[in-house]
Amino acid sequence: MGSPMRRVSQEDTWSGQVHPDIASERHVQSFDVERLTNILDRGAQNTARRRKVESIIHSDPEFSCKDNYFMTHNERYEAAVKKAFHTQMLTQSLGWSEEELVYVYRALSGDTVLGVHTGFLKALRSLGSEEQIAKWEPLCKTCRIIATYAQTELGHGTYLQGLETEATYDATTQEFVIHSPTITATKWWPGNLGRSATHALVLAQLTCSGARRGMHAFIVPIRSLQDHTPLPGITVGDIGPKMNFDELDNGFPRLDHVRVPRENMLNRFAQVLSDGTYIKRGTEQSNYLFMVVTRVEILLGEILPPLQKACVIAMRYSVIRRQSRLRPSDPEAKILDYQTQQHKLFPQLAMSYAFHFLAISILEFFQRSYNAILDRDFSLLPELHALSSGTKAMMADFCIQGAETCRRACGGHGYSKLSGLPSLVTRVSAASSYEGENTVLYLQVARFLVKSYLQAHMSPGSTSQRFLPSSVAYLTAPDLSRCPAQRAADFLCPELYTTAWAHVATRLIKDSVYHLQTRTQSGQDQHEAWNQTTVTHLQAAKAHCYYTSVKSFSEALQKLENEPAIQQVLKRLCHLHALHGILVNSGDFLHDGFLSGVQVDMARTAYLDLLLLIRGTLPMRNI
Amino acid sequence: MGSPMRRVSQEDTWSGQVHPDIASERHVQSFDVERLTNILDRGAQNTARRRKVESIIHSDPEFSCKDNYFMTHNERYEAAVKKAFHTQMLTQSLGWSEEELVYVYRALSGDTVLGVHTGFLKALRSLGSEEQIAKWEPLCKTCRIIATYAQTELGHGTYLQGLETEATYDATTQEFVIHSPTITATKWWPGNLGRSATHALVLAQLTCSGARRGMHAFIVPIRSLQDHTPLPGITVGDIGPKMNFDELDNGFPRLDHVRVPRENMLNRFAQVLSDGTYIKRGTEQSNYLFMVVTRVEILLGEILPPLQKACVIAMRYSVIRRQSRLRPSDPEAKILDYQTQQHKLFPQLAMSYAFHFLAISILEFFQRSYNAILDRDFSLLPELHALSSGTKAMMADFCIQGAETCRRACGGHGYSKLSGLPSLVTRVSAASSYEGENTVLYLQVARFLVKSYLQAHMSPGSTSQRFLPSSVAYLTAPDLSRCPAQRAADFLCPELYTTAWAHVATRLIKDSVYHLQTRTQSGQDQHEAWNQTTVTHLQAAKAHCYYTSVKSFSEALQKLENEPAIQQVLKRLCHLHALHGILVNSGDFLHDGFLSGVQVDMARTAYLDLLLLIRGTLPMRNI
Repeated sequence: MGSPMRRVSQEDTWSGQVHPDIASERHVQSFDVERLTNILDRGAQNTARRRKVESIIHSDPEFSCKDNYFMTHNERYEAAVKKAFHTQMLTQSLGWSEEELVYVYRALSGDTVLGVHTGFLKALRSLGSEEQIAKWEPLCKTCRIIATYAQTELGHGTYLQGLETEATYDATTQEFVIHSPTITATKWWPGNLGRSATHALVLAQLTCSGARRGMHAFIVPIRSLQDHTPLPGITVGDIGPKMNFDELDNGFPRLDHVRVPRENMLNRFAQVLSDGTYIKRGTEQSNYLFMVVTRVEILLGEILPPLQKACVIAMRYSVIRRQSRLRPSDPEAKILDYQTQQHKLFPQLAMSYAFHFLAISILEFFQRSYNAILDRDFSLLPELHALSSGTKAMMADFCIQGAETCRRACGGHGYSKLSGLPSLVTRVSAASSYEGENTVLYLQVARFLVKSYLQAHMSPGSTSQRFLPSSVAYLTAPDLSRCPAQRAADFLCPELYTTAWAHVATRLIKDSVYHLQTRTQSGQDQHEAWNQTTVTHLQAAKAHCYYTSVKSFSEALQKLENEPAIQQVLKRLCHLHALHGILVNSGDFLHDGFLSGVQVDMARTAYLDLLLLIRGTLPMRNI
Repeated sequence: MGSPMRRVSQEDTWSGQVHPDIASERHVQSFDVERLTNILDRGAQNTARRRKVESIIHSDPEFSCKDNYFMTHNERYEAAVKKAFHTQMLTQSLGWSEEELVYVYRALSGDTVLGVHTGFLKALRSLGSEEQIAKWEPLCKTCRIIATYAQTELGHGTYLQGLETEATYDATTQEFVIHSPTITATKWWPGNLGRSATHALVLAQLTCSGARRGMHAFIVPIRSLQDHTPLPGITVGDIGPKMNFDELDNGFPRLDHVRVPRENMLNRFAQVLSDGTYIKRGTEQSNYLFMVVTRVEILLGEILPPLQKACVIAMRYSVIRRQSRLRPSDPEAKILDYQTQQHKLFPQLAMSYAFHFLAISILEFFQRSYNAILDRDFSLLPELHALSSGTKAMMADFCIQGAETCRRACGGHGYSKLSGLPSLVTRVSAASSYEGENTVLYLQVARFLVKSYLQAHMSPGSTSQRFLPSSVAYLTAPDLSRCPAQRAADFLCPELYTTAWAHVATRLIKDSVYHLQTRTQSGQDQHEAWNQTTVTHLQAAKAHCYYTSVKSFSEALQKLENEPAIQQVLKRLCHLHALHGILVNSGDFLHDGFLSGVQVDMARTAYLDLLLLIRGTLPMRNI
């Protein structure tokens, strides 16, 4: 059957040498790269901690991923389990903190199976009582149990009210009976569950004292702690191969009247007393808290890194790959010197920075509000939900598209797994569906925007208007009807383009509210009216999210007044991010004459000039 | 190491049953589905031939792909080799024609290794003399040799002049010495070469009698026909894992002064006599002919099918998946009833049809001009090159994006390989790079457009204007400055939107010519001026290609006057295709006031109404 396989990597004599075309790029620099690194790490101390962790991971042969692309599905799983337990050992021996574990996970590029185990811990902390946390956290941290989070079902995802799994309280034995009544009720996707997990946090519809009480979380033992066989009533297995995540055993459990003790329901926000009395301490939303936590964490932990890495790979490739000639007498040119290549890559680079600063700002907002929510003050939850949902959806969309753009910018080599790019693309592609399907999330943002718009405009000057959440405060700002730009250079101004984005977002939100109201006022059922205007709402939500990213980037730059050189290079990326968005969506800006055709051309000129500026002066050392 | 892997497919009890939600959709129909099938197959006779071939393939256990997703890379290769030889046997025993082999290949979904072997045959027929064809074709057809096509090098792709592989004629032995002078000259990617091929058609820079003569094609034996070991001077192996195409052993050969006889240079368009005299019979372009042939064939053979299949899968899924409620009192709704889902999928469905008719029209144009080119009449080659390049780039772009949109429209299940969608996406993703990188192809179209525009406008009324190729004849058509549409329904008119697309394409081409000329007139070097305007050229080329797809779709519909029911449903898809493009690119239509904001809103209303119409009346049976 043909020759035996001969691997190209068997004769690798190039690795470890710096290509002269990269070395010469790194030689040029207009700012202190180390300072920028510290800024991105949020402090020089963090840079040092990160590097220490990375040097341990990268020098430890147990963590080698050299053969990953040549392994079978099963070998990937086994290698990842070994890495997970090796990590566990190191964590104990080196005393890594949770902050350091974030660096560990990032350095492992997610090539480990215990991500969801950690997810379980976080869900426990969000939804469990102090007593429950005290009981389960140590078991989890020492890996005496391996846990997962089981929410999605074969037939039910985003619409949590539709989940079929039942948890019926039996007061006679003080147990919950957890049951999958149909095949579509089979839990589907839980990471670690295919082969590894011993326990699952199962989301199920609670019935107690005959009344349905909605979704609650239950700790359900899945496999024997003695011999790892499935426990009675449990059918469990692997859901099969996926687009990526070969190392992760996503699984399916079917539960046939499985009994768990009353204490296994997480009860920070709701409790069932021994006699079946139901006590509620939170709102409807409190069960969603864990999803908000996760959505915030994945921004910097899962969604952004693939885009950042793809940018690095594609940018480096583009200065060593030479192709064709710019002039007949020249040698072949570096492909990064072609305008079209810059047009592909620099917006992705700019977006990486924009999303970094956006994610940081959301993380900070989250950290300010999380403890209040745990203490059952839910006032900030709607805004936190809208911000995290919209940012997750936008970042997932653009990071998938951006990583793929970087991949394609490397031509055929971008199709080889050895470039690293296909895996980045197929991995981040999952982000459009997990932790809330993107379209559904955008529409939740749209509901928040419609509500905020009505609050802002239906009762001008009233108290409710003054309390508009800060992320939508622009809805009440005085609006320009025409952009004042008179030449290309005028577009290189954060105030000008932030205002332009605010204008467009406001107009689109107003437009979607108008369409919604027109339909309901002409007698259409409100649900039908909503459905028939969702394409419009989607457009408005996307514009709002983009506005948010432009605004947070320019705000982050304002804080860098003491770093003029860094501020200058980042400013160019901020300009590029804003203008690229304007050019891609120019119809939205031209629609009501806010921009004229001539002004769009000016914006394009400014954009094309920025490509040259960034190519000319942005040193390679920082990428 | 965890439980043993338990596969979800082990307990499959559902396959083979039709879900009632699909059955009910199929029950509705407004036209004769069989007739539409015949139209797509270009004749009822072809439908019958295709089905006969498919029934043989699908019922033959040797062609089973049931375990594909669970195989290792090596198992995939071995299975594909077996399938290729089984196909070969059947071809001989059943006497399959080349037309039938197209159906075979399509039914195998490319899951075979001999595609490139067939590619070699086609290159031979395009570039070889009758004598050479007579010698090599039978060897190839009976698999006494296994051949491949070796053009791309590790360091050189699209820019053929940059290829480094050398072919130096040695008159003393009447041999060519084929040599890879550097590591970047290593041929890279040839399919079948990693392990299977015995011969390669190597593209190399010819030197004879001391003069460089440019790129020519040489048949080079690679492996022994006795024991399959690499022949002297040849280092050959597999380039490693890719984003897909596990079954295909893409390879790398390095050639160290490998000698082949003089007759091994393909000599339809150029010949080296025994004394080293070089005789040229073609133009510079004739060497590119094979690439044109391939580009035309992959449209229907490789690029479109993944989108078509993704549409079928996503559409079927969207009528059995129920999620959330349209009204609180309703049962959960089929997700295809959500406007946002229709907005994701129906433009892809419309595009599948648009691209089908476009590819057919290009195939027909190709068939009309190919024989003339073989007879060295190159007058139609520039237009054929521009049409095939632009269509390949556009179809690859949109089919990748469309298949991915379909994948994401299936939520988490679209991430499971078992949905079929990830493989469709990762496979078609290669199409942006192979057979000409998309950006490079678009820019070649742009050069053709610039040339045509200058020809049309620099000497009005002259002969050259009258001979403008038909695909760009619109450049001289009288232009409307404003769209006449006064209400949404006015947009449901092929003439109106075809004219709108022609207007925008013309304006963008004019704009890119203007920018180019402004730069050269102000003294900029013409190559630098070209590079600094390529983003603009790209935009113009894309608008031109989209116009072509709208025009060919509406022309195909005109021919269906005798099939009013089919014409009606396809007309809706044609409207949708044109309007979706207008809305996505609304900035281009608003820029010079051709459309007003109010008219864009009308187009959106027409578009949203079409979604409902298509959902309401397009029967499922045909998808």
